[in-house]
Amino acid sequence: MKPVITIEYCPKCGWLLRAAYMAQELLTTFSAELGGVTLQPSETSGTYIMRLDDEVIYDRRESGHFPEIKALKQLVRDLICPDKSLGHSDR
Amino acid sequence: MKPVITIEYCPKCGWLLRAAYMAQELLTTFSAELGGVTLQPSETSGTYIMRLDDEVIYDRRESGHFPEIKALKQLVRDLICPDKSLGHSDR
Repeated sequence: MKPVITIEYCPKCGWLLRAAYMAQELLTTFSAELGGVTLQPSETSGTYIMRLDDEVIYDRRESGHFPEIKALKQLVRDLICPDKSLGHSDR
Repeated sequence: MKPVITIEYCPKCGWLLRAAYMAQELLTTFSAELGGVTLQPSETSGTYIMRLDDEVIYDRRESGHFPEIKALKQLVRDLICPDKSLGHSDR
């Protein structure tokens, strides 16, 4: 089973579009490595949590901001395919 | 557990954007009723299959075309919350 990323977002905060954007970024870069990305509406206001399988890899509440795409891709790459080059965004 | 929709799409056909668009349509309409929508890259070329939990509810190969959004929402509504009105798109 390939790893699955879940993005739990607050629909009331209007974060669906942001979550869908990040899902597409991840699926474009890790098309062969990921089993999927799940967009999950949260029942808790202000939530923006990303999980790799069951492990939390990003929590907006802890970091105080949304993830930056380059850093997010590096984080996911390091966890699921550490030998993969991310091209320009790795430099 | 709320129902989860999975969209298995062919990345080589370039159908990620279409799948992500449909995911956002479904999550906008069924924000409270769905547990999530998973975007799942397929390893089989030409695949565009939608599942509600484990049940196939749409298969492009069988129908010969992509789902129309209004019909898709009615299909999902009938399965997960038959009493819900879809407003304008129901008429």
